Amino acid sequence: MAKRLVDLNCDLGESFGHWTISEAPDDVLLDLISSANVATGFHAGDPNLMDRVVRLAAERGVALGAHPGFRDLQGFGRRVIQARPEELVNDIIYQLGALREFARRHGVRLQHVKPHGALYMEVARDETLSQLLVEALLKSSPETYLYCMDVSVTCTVARAAGLPVIREFYADRDYDNSGSIVFARRMRALDPEDVARKCVRACLEGRVRTVEGDDIEIEFESICFHSDTPGALKIGTAIRAGLIDAGIRIANAAEVSAAA
Amino acid sequence: MAKRLVDLNCDLGESFGHWTISEAPDDVLLDLISSANVATGFHAGDPNLMDRVVRLAAERGVALGAHPGFRDLQGFGRRVIQARPEELVNDIIYQLGALREFARRHGVRLQHVKPHGALYMEVARDETLSQLLVEALLKSSPETYLYCMDVSVTCTVARAAGLPVIREFYADRDYDNSGSIVFARRMRALDPEDVARKCVRACLEGRVRTVEGDDIEIEFESICFHSDTPGALKIGTAIRAGLIDAGIRIANAAEVSAAA
Amino acid sequence: MAKRLVDLNCDLGESFGHWTISEAPDDVLLDLISSANVATGFHAGDPNLMDRVVRLAAERGVALGAHPGFRDLQGFGRRVIQARPEELVNDIIYQLGALREFARRHGVRLQHVKPHGALYMEVARDETLSQLLVEALLKSSPETYLYCMDVSVTCTVARAAGLPVIREFYADRDYDNSGSIVFARRMRALDPEDVARKCVRACLEGRVRTVEGDDIEIEFESICFHSDTPGALKIGTAIRAGLIDAGIRIANAAEVSAAA
Amino acid sequence: MAKRLVDLNCDLGESFGHWTISEAPDDVLLDLISSANVATGFHAGDPNLMDRVVRLAAERGVALGAHPGFRDLQGFGRRVIQARPEELVNDIIYQLGALREFARRHGVRLQHVKPHGALYMEVARDETLSQLLVEALLKSSPETYLYCMDVSVTCTVARAAGLPVIREFYADRDYDNSGSIVFARRMRALDPEDVARKCVRACLEGRVRTVEGDDIEIEFESICFHSDTPGALKIGTAIRAGLIDAGIRIANAAEVSAAA
Repeated sequence: MAKRLVDLNCDLGESFGHWTISEAPDDVLLDLISSANVATGFHAGDPNLMDRVVRLAAERGVALGAHPGFRDLQGFGRRVIQARPEELVNDIIYQLGALREFARRHGVRLQHVKPHGALYMEVARDETLSQLLVEALLKSSPETYLYCMDVSVTCTVARAAGLPVIREFYADRDYDNSGSIVFARRMRALDPEDVARKCVRACLEGRVRTVEGDDIEIEFESICFHSDTPGALKIGTAIRAGLIDAGIRIANAAEVSAAA
Repeated sequence: MAKRLVDLNCDLGESFGHWTISEAPDDVLLDLISSANVATGFHAGDPNLMDRVVRLAAERGVALGAHPGFRDLQGFGRRVIQARPEELVNDIIYQLGALREFARRHGVRLQHVKPHGALYMEVARDETLSQLLVEALLKSSPETYLYCMDVSVTCTVARAAGLPVIREFYADRDYDNSGSIVFARRMRALDPEDVARKCVRACLEGRVRTVEGDDIEIEFESICFHSDTPGALKIGTAIRAGLIDAGIRIANAAEVSAAA
Repeated sequence: MAKRLVDLNCDLGESFGHWTISEAPDDVLLDLISSANVATGFHAGDPNLMDRVVRLAAERGVALGAHPGFRDLQGFGRRVIQARPEELVNDIIYQLGALREFARRHGVRLQHVKPHGALYMEVARDETLSQLLVEALLKSSPETYLYCMDVSVTCTVARAAGLPVIREFYADRDYDNSGSIVFARRMRALDPEDVARKCVRACLEGRVRTVEGDDIEIEFESICFHSDTPGALKIGTAIRAGLIDAGIRIANAAEVSAAA
Repeated sequence: MAKRLVDLNCDLGESFGHWTISEAPDDVLLDLISSANVATGFHAGDPNLMDRVVRLAAERGVALGAHPGFRDLQGFGRRVIQARPEELVNDIIYQLGALREFARRHGVRLQHVKPHGALYMEVARDETLSQLLVEALLKSSPETYLYCMDVSVTCTVARAAGLPVIREFYADRDYDNSGSIVFARRMRALDPEDVARKCVRACLEGRVRTVEGDDIEIEFESICFHSDTPGALKIGTAIRAGLIDAGIRIANAAEVSAAA
């Protein structure tokens, strides 16, 4: 069934100290989206930046999510660290809480949590890790959405346990026939209009073309693009315009979820 | 007026990864105290350890406090980093939130926040830093006690702003005539009985001998000792026994505060 | 006496992991200069980047220097850490050696060492730190130039001990009447032609205008500009062109030193 | 053929900042061994400690080796980071150089390099990584021994390329039938006399019992034990006494190599 409502999320606050990674300023990106995934200091982001991005998001009514990653600043959280699942869950809880405190400071609540990069992919495929994470979230944050892919183990485990999920469609990543995205350490350039058409089609037809050349069905409540993808600002702008032109309203996870 | 009730707090969870700093295990120390200051990862502590210490404290009914420090693992938070006050407050908010999330996970609340080491001393003497910290805490954690010294700027600023404070007496640090402790990077060995007598006298007479050889008046609701002081376990045991022998009950900050 | 020969040095390799700080690529900047100060990992730079910059410098015959900073990635080495002088010297020795090994790998030698940012300023004013550093360098690297300001304690101490120094003129920093630069955490934009004129005048007349509005005499063998100053590429290009137009040849420290 | 000469090596300097991991002081362990593997800051060790251990080793005539690990202080280098081989080689070069500079400061040379923990195991099994490392070492340190296991890819690759190797026998690790050690994140307690007997037998008979219960042949020039194994001091003392009692002299790698 064609969607009339979709969440649009983006990873933000991924600079660190004096360095930057995205040519698109966080405040401009915030004007495009309904949900922000804010880097929480292990792979990117620092307390000063987190405070700033949370404040900017709060001012615009953009919903906030924690975006915890592997403890690997040099690798930007795109290298797997072979840690025990318990350790990784503790890393996530730590980072989630850090962001939540900035939300409290700025008078808003935490809407969601979404692991970053290689950690997102590890959770997606590792059942023990997904289960431990879901158990921990049910205790500390039972009302917080967990963002994940429809085909992921994460999604299955969270739903079985009663933790609310938001499934994502990746605007700027390739899909394979399994319905999973193809993980990339560094991104190639993309055509913004192609990306926008891909998103609109996914919303209206529920289908996406894979790297194998096939069409597969795809289910989601949110569309994600990355601020460090080259041309992120143009991509985000094109997605937003494309959705609106197609009569699809951008709304945050709570509203999309309620409407589903 | 002689005290009949005092909080006893100790810095805990100050190991990191595979390393240790205290010969006294956290679980044993927890049996001695009413409030635990848990290291939050910047100067010591890691998410695994924080999870463990919070769980152990929750099991024993020991009240929890965040113990944020400078971002300086190598220096154990005992070296000042000359950062802007806004930066330091963000560092504290970040770490406070991280610990609070573990408290949520284990079904307990955060009782207090107490900066660590050189950061504690910086907040104690820097009015701008104290004011920014107090403002931030009033927004994110208005119900959380701020631990400080009676003579500190922190105490004055927090009280003026309406943030609840708990004033500390330092069992294992020397005092000077200003009523401030003398900051030490590494601790010398102490005689546990001397330390206990010093604490009991402070409770009963409200006085302490300074490094200059004078007696000064001292006001406090909590007694602090450090888990990395050589002989910490014996010191903590002696303080506890000394207090109980003197008819002084050990209770956490909320109870002491209510009774005051 | 008017100079006919001057070294031109620039801080390079100051990105970290996936992040960047300068809009000017290292390889382009290397075409402008005779000596490169390569960040060595504590305040900026990582082993991958160090390897790359050393290789690029070696290919162009640009002389190499280690550019060690405070252990403070978040603060980019522009925040003082109040450590003991012995600790800071060990930090410098560590970083110096790390860079030297990449030089060995690429078949070139290390020409110089130059502390970065706040550490440079600390060494410049702290006699104990300067003396310990000079003693350590005399043992591990007696043939390595120490870059410093003419008016610094570093310069006095190094010369007295027989360690070779190169004195710097700062193209993109303001001077005060003491002959020292005015330390800045973040740089304002500068006019490249103004900067170039300032450099040429310093070479030809040996004078610079201070923030107090006076002219002072300035002695140096090398001119420094920073890759993270906004417009660094235009500034470096203008300096180089200005020097050449004025008949001043750009040569590395060894040659400038031999000619002096 | 029974050995009359063997190198005895131990990992040292594995504390960090104010924390410790081994109950055996570095200076006492140094009296037992002929070669020290000094942690180089990524998984353990810091510049102050490196300086101290290098000085202590130099005073005792114990040969020095760099002991680089994964950039993972929290995991003590015992968690694999899935990085590209080029990245890991750069990490090793960086750390190797850092230690070499302390050796220069104290007037001694670097004898060897030996990756730590999970990185040692990765190099042992990954041919690309071994080849890139050997190539890099041939350029920056062609005279430096690479410590490795006889059955490792590292050994094969280094020998084929002409890089000198020292093969190790692990006193405090279990072997499997492949001739490789069984990697352990944390060590169980061992009986010092058992360990000593195992070493003496390996020297005299060239055989070791595996976890499968078989005897296999084992070739080596050096025996390794770990300072963080519980009871390390007793283990090291027992090994040393056992070897001497059996008429086997402890000598550093150069001498053992020359005699082979």
